[in-house]
Amino acid sequence: MTVPRLTTALSGPLSALERQLIARATDIEQWLRAQWQDHAPPFYGSVDLRNSGFKLAPVDTNLFPGGFNNLNPEFHALCVQAAMAAVENICPDARGALLIPENHTRNQFYLQNVATLARILRHAGMHVRIGSLLPGLNAPMEVDLPNGKKLKLEPLLRKGNRLMVEGFDPCVVLLNNDLSSGIPDILRGLEQAMLPPLHAGWAVRRKSHHFEAYREVAEDFAKVHGLDPWLINPYFEMCGKINFQDRQGEECLAGYVSEILSDIRVKYQEYGIKEEPFVIVKADAGTYGMGIMTVKDASEVRGLNRKQRNKMAVVKEGLQVHEVLVQEGVHTFETVRDAAAEPVVYMIDRYVVGGFYRVHTERGKDQNLNAPGMQFEPLAFADPCSSPDPDAPDCPPNRFYAYGVVARLALLAAAIELERTESLLEEAPAVQRSVAAS
Amino acid sequence: MTVPRLTTALSGPLSALERQLIARATDIEQWLRAQWQDHAPPFYGSVDLRNSGFKLAPVDTNLFPGGFNNLNPEFHALCVQAAMAAVENICPDARGALLIPENHTRNQFYLQNVATLARILRHAGMHVRIGSLLPGLNAPMEVDLPNGKKLKLEPLLRKGNRLMVEGFDPCVVLLNNDLSSGIPDILRGLEQAMLPPLHAGWAVRRKSHHFEAYREVAEDFAKVHGLDPWLINPYFEMCGKINFQDRQGEECLAGYVSEILSDIRVKYQEYGIKEEPFVIVKADAGTYGMGIMTVKDASEVRGLNRKQRNKMAVVKEGLQVHEVLVQEGVHTFETVRDAAAEPVVYMIDRYVVGGFYRVHTERGKDQNLNAPGMQFEPLAFADPCSSPDPDAPDCPPNRFYAYGVVARLALLAAAIELERTESLLEEAPAVQRSVAAS
Repeated sequence: MTVPRLTTALSGPLSALERQLIARATDIEQWLRAQWQDHAPPFYGSVDLRNSGFKLAPVDTNLFPGGFNNLNPEFHALCVQAAMAAVENICPDARGALLIPENHTRNQFYLQNVATLARILRHAGMHVRIGSLLPGLNAPMEVDLPNGKKLKLEPLLRKGNRLMVEGFDPCVVLLNNDLSSGIPDILRGLEQAMLPPLHAGWAVRRKSHHFEAYREVAEDFAKVHGLDPWLINPYFEMCGKINFQDRQGEECLAGYVSEILSDIRVKYQEYGIKEEPFVIVKADAGTYGMGIMTVKDASEVRGLNRKQRNKMAVVKEGLQVHEVLVQEGVHTFETVRDAAAEPVVYMIDRYVVGGFYRVHTERGKDQNLNAPGMQFEPLAFADPCSSPDPDAPDCPPNRFYAYGVVARLALLAAAIELERTESLLEEAPAVQRSVAAS
Repeated sequence: MTVPRLTTALSGPLSALERQLIARATDIEQWLRAQWQDHAPPFYGSVDLRNSGFKLAPVDTNLFPGGFNNLNPEFHALCVQAAMAAVENICPDARGALLIPENHTRNQFYLQNVATLARILRHAGMHVRIGSLLPGLNAPMEVDLPNGKKLKLEPLLRKGNRLMVEGFDPCVVLLNNDLSSGIPDILRGLEQAMLPPLHAGWAVRRKSHHFEAYREVAEDFAKVHGLDPWLINPYFEMCGKINFQDRQGEECLAGYVSEILSDIRVKYQEYGIKEEPFVIVKADAGTYGMGIMTVKDASEVRGLNRKQRNKMAVVKEGLQVHEVLVQEGVHTFETVRDAAAEPVVYMIDRYVVGGFYRVHTERGKDQNLNAPGMQFEPLAFADPCSSPDPDAPDCPPNRFYAYGVVARLALLAAAIELERTESLLEEAPAVQRSVAAS
């Protein structure tokens, strides 16, 4: 194992919460199994966690995970096995999968992720071709990978209600594109299975829907397993009808910021926590950590200057921000060589298949670590999160187990979220590239 | 990874057969997936393989595998994930499993296997207790494990049609006892799920049924993937009505030995193989490598001396041998420090979860390596058999992949065998300990 030891994660004592999760591991697995009987897991997902020692919570659930290349290569077999189970559950007869990635042709890390995903699917028994939404792509294009291999991107073809690439008519379309810029017509109304479904893209998805479902999941889970749900669930509220440029909705924002900060203070007092509460203000739709602020006082969201307003107004692909999530901030107490580290857990179907730490040397423990242009250092987990050992409370697999539990609660919330939001697809915008107002 | 490099397995060039399997990996996975749609895999199994370079074949398929402790600990997560999938497929609501081991209380290796199995099941979300068939066990008994821990064996209780131990009414009974001595009444007619089913035990099971099913599977597989089925399938015939002590059936045996030797010679000539053909004569029921002979000429099975006849007449638990399998011998060309090495592949549900080499320094490449009292050295696989890399033909995962394919063909044969032999359960003997005639 070539993964270095992590200062907190691998040597710090376990928190009370982690100990509780480990002691109840068998019952937790049963509870999760019962949940998956009622809710179909998304094909895959990754969950950003924050671990403050006293609290372990998801802060973002990604249904188009882009970091399979960052997982420990020794867990590849685990990914393959989980993908086999997923294919068996969803479409056992599937032979061909068309993988649709993001339109990044120069982001070597992302391209390596696409190559890794394709490899997992091939080993799971799927023929894989990569169909690209790149505008103007008329012929296959080969892009170089950091490992010297090449990745072939092919133009999408539509025949009736089937999506294909030249000479390849797949049974399944696997999206690794979060549809931030809307839903392209070529993807609508396909007769093939689409995984995850179109409404999992940011054209339809809202973080508030996710965290509403997560709140219910966390409360159910906490009740059954005798926990305070707050230990795994960050407070949040949503402000609609925001317009940062016009200063619309500032009062709603300030109101919720102050309400949540005061709710956190009550909890910190209850648990004797000395840290300073903070909230995160972020776009309700969208990804990549654009439009995110760390706020410690309501006054900070009143009277934003032009630069701050512009930063908050637009996320990936020029998508305008009109709905904003105000979420309890969770300090990250995990560090690697004095830098803040945020665990990211990867899942395929209902199975945890690994994860990594997002490590950023220039950010504090109360800041978002997934920021634009961020050069995070991925640090693969040394353990695949499934082997808690109650007889050795401080051994590294135990912390990873706790991560895996909370990440799967978020995945379950995503499953419920997707059930509830299917009907929103019809109202979803087509591809649009709004230009950010200046 | 602490596993030493294996002389042949990890550094020798791949054979033509292995190359073919790797090149077709994606199609092979699809073919297997389709087979598992029609045939439910046994809960678990292990397959002894022999690899002669030109030929890779199963020589024994164990439905009560006893070496989970020999797997690479780094594959534990793979075992847990496969067990989760198995439970989900077979009995998603199961919460408690009663594990019934062999009656070995002093075999530390075996007890460690039971402890490992229990750990896998617990991590997969099952409460596990160990119920023992030990005669005269009236109270729980703790046995020491090599790692300093203890294993608690509890007396079985039967209430109506349910099997339990004190204070524990399981949903599932998991057999890790091969029922060589017959089927105890306490296990018959249970309303709980029994995995694997009773007729998978040696009271009912016959190797010839297994290899009949395997022959069909191998022929189907070979046809689809363009192979000569002989490359993965050893010739065999079965002689019934044998009585070694009375010299009954000797002619049947000699006839088949000579027939199979001559069939092998034809194939060796076709492929230009210079090795000397041999056959293995072994009991059609039973395990542990008792009652096994290596034979290079029909004359060797005529006029056995008293010692040889006694050795062949009885297998484990005093079970009398009346049916004998004559099977093409496959040379093992894999060696570790000049000792013959036989790969053993472990599976849970349809998934390969690891394996090890059975290494015996005192045996030749044409002898059975699973002999009574044998102190084999288990050498865990460094790779979990699921990551073939066609671009790097001689890399170690490729050989492991070939193992995993052939082992799964044998598992599929076991699934078909169990479908066909269910009706034989009614005729199966109750527990009997026949005393070997001297």
